[in-house]
Amino acid sequence: MTPFSADEVLARCDVLAGISAATDGIERAYLTPEHARANWTVGEWMDAAGLDAWQDAAGNQRGTLAGPTADAPILLLGSHLDTVPGAGRYDGILGTLLAIAVVGRLRARGVELPFGLEVIGFADEEGTRFGRTLLGSCAVAGTWQESWWGLRDAHGTTVRDAFIAFGLDPARVGDASLRGQSIVGYLEAHIEQGPLLQDADRALGVVEGIMGARRFELQMTGEAGHAGGMPYGRRRDALLGASEVVTAVEALARDAGAIGTVGRLHAYPGAMNVIPGRVEFSLDLRAETDALRDRVWREIEEAALKAAASRNLAFDVHELHAARATHVAAPLAAAVEAGIRASGDAAPMRLLSKAGHDAMAIADLCDYAMLFIRCKDGVSHHRDESVRADDVALALDAFEATVLAVADAHDRAHD
Amino acid sequence: MTPFSADEVLARCDVLAGISAATDGIERAYLTPEHARANWTVGEWMDAAGLDAWQDAAGNQRGTLAGPTADAPILLLGSHLDTVPGAGRYDGILGTLLAIAVVGRLRARGVELPFGLEVIGFADEEGTRFGRTLLGSCAVAGTWQESWWGLRDAHGTTVRDAFIAFGLDPARVGDASLRGQSIVGYLEAHIEQGPLLQDADRALGVVEGIMGARRFELQMTGEAGHAGGMPYGRRRDALLGASEVVTAVEALARDAGAIGTVGRLHAYPGAMNVIPGRVEFSLDLRAETDALRDRVWREIEEAALKAAASRNLAFDVHELHAARATHVAAPLAAAVEAGIRASGDAAPMRLLSKAGHDAMAIADLCDYAMLFIRCKDGVSHHRDESVRADDVALALDAFEATVLAVADAHDRAHD
Repeated sequence: MTPFSADEVLARCDVLAGISAATDGIERAYLTPEHARANWTVGEWMDAAGLDAWQDAAGNQRGTLAGPTADAPILLLGSHLDTVPGAGRYDGILGTLLAIAVVGRLRARGVELPFGLEVIGFADEEGTRFGRTLLGSCAVAGTWQESWWGLRDAHGTTVRDAFIAFGLDPARVGDASLRGQSIVGYLEAHIEQGPLLQDADRALGVVEGIMGARRFELQMTGEAGHAGGMPYGRRRDALLGASEVVTAVEALARDAGAIGTVGRLHAYPGAMNVIPGRVEFSLDLRAETDALRDRVWREIEEAALKAAASRNLAFDVHELHAARATHVAAPLAAAVEAGIRASGDAAPMRLLSKAGHDAMAIADLCDYAMLFIRCKDGVSHHRDESVRADDVALALDAFEATVLAVADAHDRAHD
Repeated sequence: MTPFSADEVLARCDVLAGISAATDGIERAYLTPEHARANWTVGEWMDAAGLDAWQDAAGNQRGTLAGPTADAPILLLGSHLDTVPGAGRYDGILGTLLAIAVVGRLRARGVELPFGLEVIGFADEEGTRFGRTLLGSCAVAGTWQESWWGLRDAHGTTVRDAFIAFGLDPARVGDASLRGQSIVGYLEAHIEQGPLLQDADRALGVVEGIMGARRFELQMTGEAGHAGGMPYGRRRDALLGASEVVTAVEALARDAGAIGTVGRLHAYPGAMNVIPGRVEFSLDLRAETDALRDRVWREIEEAALKAAASRNLAFDVHELHAARATHVAAPLAAAVEAGIRASGDAAPMRLLSKAGHDAMAIADLCDYAMLFIRCKDGVSHHRDESVRADDVALALDAFEATVLAVADAHDRAHD
C-alpha cells in the first residue's frame, strides 16, 4: 500500500475499528484500555510519518515536527480518537489519520514549512464516559476545570481515579496545555455527520462555524408502586412525565429551527410490574445562535415543569456543559477554501457544523478552521457510518494544500 | 417475643428485609444467593412451628405437617418470598410468615385437623429476574413450560444455568409438582397493594378474584445518528416513537377502565449526543375481564404501529405471558369471610385483586381463596410499603379462623 495514501488512511481506520470495548459497533471511551491501545497504535503511525510521538498529561496522543527555528510557531492539526458507544469508524478518526498522512506527504516531498507542526489525536471529544465532552481538547487549550476531577462514570469511577488507573498524574494535567505558546492556528478535517454535502453532490466543504450546544441531565421523580394495585388517580408515574418531555423537546426545538435530542433515558426501578418512580434522561440542545438555543431551553423547561406539576412529580435539572457557538477565523478558512479549490472544486461549499468538535475547545487557545468530508446519507454515531475512498483522496489533497496555503499566508505576513 | 404473635411476624419481616442484593430498598430475585439465604431462614422458622421444612426442586421453600392418616388430603397455605427491585418488606413475605404462624398457633393449641397442611414460600412470583412471573407456583401447579429453560436474565444467564448454579437439577423440576395429589385448596394472605381497604376503613378483606394480566416486551427500532448533524426530517428516533406509546398506554387504558403500566424503558445506544436507534420497553396490562384487557391491547398495538409508521420505525412485540382472570372458589371464600368475622368485622368487605398472585398459578391445580390486609396508602413495590401491627394481629386471628372454618366444612362434607 502506498504510504500516506487514501487507501492507507482507510485501512488504518479499519485497524482502529478493531480496538473496541464492544463487538457490536465500536466503543472506545476515555482512559480505558482501548484508549491506551489506540494511542499506542496511532503513535507508531506518527513515528512512521516523521513525527515525534508522545502521550500528553491528559491522555491525548500527540506527534511533533520541529519548525525551522527553536522559536518558530506551530500549526496544530488533528481530531479525536475516542468514540460514542456503537460508533462508526470515521468520526474523529479519519481527521486524525488524514493529518498524520499530510505530514508524511509533506516530509516525503521535502517541503520546508515556516512553522512547526503538531498532530493531536484528542482523547475525549465525545464525553461518552464522564458526560462532559471535550476533556482532551480543553486540557490542550488550558481550560481544564478543577470540578471535572469529581465527575463519575456509570460505575462510579471519578476522572481523578481513572487518570491514576491509566498511569497519568492528575497534578500534572496542566503540562498538556499549549497556553502561552506561539500558535499559528488549528486545522481539523472531519466527516460532515450530516447530509448537506451529499445533497449538494460535493465531496468537501468549508466549515463556517460550530453551533453551540447545551447538555443537561434531567430527572423526573414520582413514586414507585404496584402496577396493578395503584389506581390512576393516585399514580405518580415518572415515566409518563418524562415521555411528555421527550415529545415536547421535539415539538419545541423543531418549531424554533433548533435541534434537541434525548439520547439517554432510563426508568427506575425498572421492573415490568412496578410504576417507575424515577426517570433519568439527557438533553442535547443546539441552535445556530446561542440566543435561540437558550430561548428553546426555557420553553422546554417550562413544558417539563408543567408536565411535572400536572402529575405531582418533581423535575430536576443539572446542566453538564454549555458551549458557545464559535466561528472560524477568516484567514484560516480561506486557506481551507484554497485547499479544496486545489483539489479540483472551483467553488467550495460553505456550511455550518451542527455537531461539536475539538475545534470548539481549541478556539479558546487559537484561531481554527475546518474541512468537512461527505459521509453517506449523513449517518454518523452509528456502525453504518461510511465514506467514499475517492472523497478521502480529495480530502488528503485538499488538507495538504490547506497547510501549504497557511504557510504561504504566513510567509507573506512575515516577509 | 410471644411465639407466633403478630410482633414476631413483623420482626421476621424485618429480618428478611435484610436479605437483599441492594441496600437502597430490598431486592431478592429468583435463584440468587439472597433467595437461598431467605429459604434457609424461613426453613428454620417452619421447623420451629412444627413443620417439616424442605426446599423443592424449583427452589420453593416448603413446610409439611402430616394429616391424620397417610391418605389425608392437604390444605395449602402460602405466598412468595421473592421481591421486585427496590421492594418493601411485606408483599408476599407477610402472607408466608402469617401462614407459618397460623400453623404454630394451631399446633400450640393441639388442634387436630382433618387434613395435612403445607406452607409454601414461593420462589418467584414477581418475575424480576427472567421476566416471566409465577415460575415457583407454576412448578408446584405442574404447569412448568419447557420453553422457560431458555429465558435469560439481564446478564444473559438462562433459567437452566441458574438452576444448576443454585444447586437444582433442571431434569427434576417435575418433582415440585403437587398434581395428582388430593388437595383441599389453597389459601393466601397478602397485603392489598391498593388503597381500597384503607379508604373503607377496614383492616381485612375477602378477595373475589384476580385480574388477568398480559405482559409484553416491546421494541421500537429506528436508526442511531448524530444528535447535531442529522436534520429532523431524516431522523428515525426510536425514543420519540416509544414515548408516544407510553402516553398512549395511559390514555387508552384509563379511558377503558383498564390499567396499563410501562415499568421498564431503556434507550440504546444511550449516549447524550446520539439519536436513540432502539428502545426496549415493557407493558403490563390488566382489566377486570380478559375481553376488556384484550380489546385495550389491540388499541395500544394499533396506536404503536401508527406511531412507528409515522416515524419510519419498526415496532416489535414479544408477549411474555398472559394470565387469565381467575375467580376464587365460593366455599373457600366463605371460609375466609367467616375468618374475618371471627376477628371482629361483622360484614367483611369484598374486593377484586388488581395485582397478580401465586394463587393465579395454583388455580390450575386446585381451588383457592385469599385474604387481603390493609397497607398504608396502597403503596407497594416500594420501600415505603407499610402495615399496621394491629392489622397483622387481626389477620393472624382471621387466617387461623379461616383454616378452622375450612376444617369444619371439610368435616361436614365428609361426615
